[in-house]
Amino acid sequence: MPEYQVPSFHELTPVSELYGRISIAREYLSEMGLSGALVVQPADLFYFTGTLQSGHLLIPPKGEPLLMVRRDLDRARAESGLRDIVGLKRFGELPELVADRLGGAPRCLGLELDVLPVNFFKQYQRLWPEVEFEDISPAILAQRAVKSEYEIDRMRRSGLLARQVYARIPQLMKPGQSEIELAGLITREAYAGGHQNYLRMRSFDQVMYTWHVISGKSGGMRSYLDAAFGGYGLSPAFPLGASEKIMEAGESVLIDFGLCLAGYQVDLTRMYAFGEPPSPIRDAYQALARIEAGILSGLVPGATGDELFHLAVSRAEELGFGDAFLGTPNHKVRFVGHGVGLEINDFPILAAGFHDPLKENMTVALELKMVFPGVGAVGLENTFLVTGRIPENLSPANDELVIV
Amino acid sequence: MPEYQVPSFHELTPVSELYGRISIAREYLSEMGLSGALVVQPADLFYFTGTLQSGHLLIPPKGEPLLMVRRDLDRARAESGLRDIVGLKRFGELPELVADRLGGAPRCLGLELDVLPVNFFKQYQRLWPEVEFEDISPAILAQRAVKSEYEIDRMRRSGLLARQVYARIPQLMKPGQSEIELAGLITREAYAGGHQNYLRMRSFDQVMYTWHVISGKSGGMRSYLDAAFGGYGLSPAFPLGASEKIMEAGESVLIDFGLCLAGYQVDLTRMYAFGEPPSPIRDAYQALARIEAGILSGLVPGATGDELFHLAVSRAEELGFGDAFLGTPNHKVRFVGHGVGLEINDFPILAAGFHDPLKENMTVALELKMVFPGVGAVGLENTFLVTGRIPENLSPANDELVIV
Repeated sequence: MPEYQVPSFHELTPVSELYGRISIAREYLSEMGLSGALVVQPADLFYFTGTLQSGHLLIPPKGEPLLMVRRDLDRARAESGLRDIVGLKRFGELPELVADRLGGAPRCLGLELDVLPVNFFKQYQRLWPEVEFEDISPAILAQRAVKSEYEIDRMRRSGLLARQVYARIPQLMKPGQSEIELAGLITREAYAGGHQNYLRMRSFDQVMYTWHVISGKSGGMRSYLDAAFGGYGLSPAFPLGASEKIMEAGESVLIDFGLCLAGYQVDLTRMYAFGEPPSPIRDAYQALARIEAGILSGLVPGATGDELFHLAVSRAEELGFGDAFLGTPNHKVRFVGHGVGLEINDFPILAAGFHDPLKENMTVALELKMVFPGVGAVGLENTFLVTGRIPENLSPANDELVIV
Repeated sequence: MPEYQVPSFHELTPVSELYGRISIAREYLSEMGLSGALVVQPADLFYFTGTLQSGHLLIPPKGEPLLMVRRDLDRARAESGLRDIVGLKRFGELPELVADRLGGAPRCLGLELDVLPVNFFKQYQRLWPEVEFEDISPAILAQRAVKSEYEIDRMRRSGLLARQVYARIPQLMKPGQSEIELAGLITREAYAGGHQNYLRMRSFDQVMYTWHVISGKSGGMRSYLDAAFGGYGLSPAFPLGASEKIMEAGESVLIDFGLCLAGYQVDLTRMYAFGEPPSPIRDAYQALARIEAGILSGLVPGATGDELFHLAVSRAEELGFGDAFLGTPNHKVRFVGHGVGLEINDFPILAAGFHDPLKENMTVALELKMVFPGVGAVGLENTFLVTGRIPENLSPANDELVIV
């Protein structure tokens, strides 16, 4: 009997799903002429194995993948549908295990060089002094950008939780609360629905954390994040998202955070106000809805991030909101959306300079924001599934501006 | 007038504190023969600058440090007490800015190679093809391990919040709740006190997230984390901490999470039970208190992590809990504590094989855990300040086993 038994409230990734993903990866490994790829980054590892236990996944261009687990082996075997899962006691065992599986020493190995720290890389170089290493992340991210039906269903489920949680927000908020108090109430609500409040972000120095509850003039506050605004945050040591600022009657409140079940996120932003919001919040929010509708007509396979970015900017200008759209004139961001799924910054990127065509079954968060210094920020964001026809909204929460 | 005004609820790191830290760093930069260090990792950047806006901090072995900010410059200037803060529009501007400050091109630069991803490192290599790069992280971490009076006061404040939040837990918990529901209630309480619920962990693939609410047999579940146990977690995509497991009458509940104000964390673990806990939970908890007392008498400047680890293990064996201490016999972890401060895995490490002597004003979490498969996990953890005399408990929450 295995020591670890999967609890009834955990769902396992179907075996066919895992091998389908592996088989797509094998194609580009062959095309790239790699002997194999070693996958270690959490989101990628979960994607290909269905477990997040710590270890190395070897994907060869042909034949069975091998998951070598440092910790915890029993749990990895219980959670993952892969056939070959072995223990890895010491890092130094890797070359032998890899050579066995590949039928010889590798010539060229794929690694996730966008996230792998230098000191880990040096350890690989010492293990394989003759081997060339190539960055496999762009290929993995391009693969992960296109979601399977299984993944889309998971995201739909997160979207239903989003609808439920956002619907509760008007009852949770009141003037006199701090932003972070409201974030706490929302977190509690979301946790009760099984939400994973930590949204994975592929970055070595940025994290996506706390509900972005951003009220009144907090909305004019920029942050280190590539976003039109970021709020004050709790302290200079975490200068992003909800803060101890008191929310006051007459202010508008922007709430931006993803919901996540079983690892799959949807991202959305909604607007609330304590009484009729100050001008031009309401008009700006209506303009964002029109900009969204405009982009949706173009959000089809074959469109590029660059086109959609420029489409959004010209719509904003036509509607008279060019100055406020995507930030104040000297501090505008150059993107209107991002992929979302296992990570909050999945491919594709809807931004100036991105010319790769969108594909069917990509999932993108259209992130439309405006900033009015001294008044507040306005945002409308939904996660959409790119289909052959009208995009499906995967974050179907009420999108009216709610007066509390 | 600067565009960003620091809100009244944010505290800035005193200028003297920052320059004191810079001056200690200058010493080891000189000793290491470096032309300077480029600091980019969030915890280190905040430590030396008082701001977390995105950028590069150049610390030369002599003269004024230079903070080059990618985003957001106004906010960095408002938050940081450093004198020289400039904008960095393009990565390619770095060599000129660095050479200006150093009075010539660098020969050898310190980088944080334990966390810096390979692709970033390659960008630096392209900018400075002639320069040698050395890992500056061990020196920074050794420096950060010894806290200043200012930092210790910040940790004391987090400890007072910990006392307050943990005191509320018995009123928040009841049988029939899921672990994650209780985690939500605690999070709400902690948020209301200004707690930063994201505990920074220096790792490219591990995060410290959700309150570890671990009830009954969840306590036997190991995880990818180097810990005696980790709980089920919400899903295989986040297999750590609180889960949707229902907590039942008769079960004991272990709660382990840090509190964090202004970026400074304290880490602690306490035990609760719904009614008298099953054997041997109570006895085991009392044994942990005795093991803690035993370690405390040895937790003095000059002691080593290795000594304290072996001291703890032999105390556990004397008390008849050798099998359960630090995990089940085949799955024991080899550490009994870790530094804590701006990161949850600060130096020092109290573990077998660590022979560096402790220093005064180090802050360490003594993490004492036992596992009884099928029954539960037992833990007692406090954050202590190493002094010349009796260590100060920085997490002074009630440490009785609380029957709910």
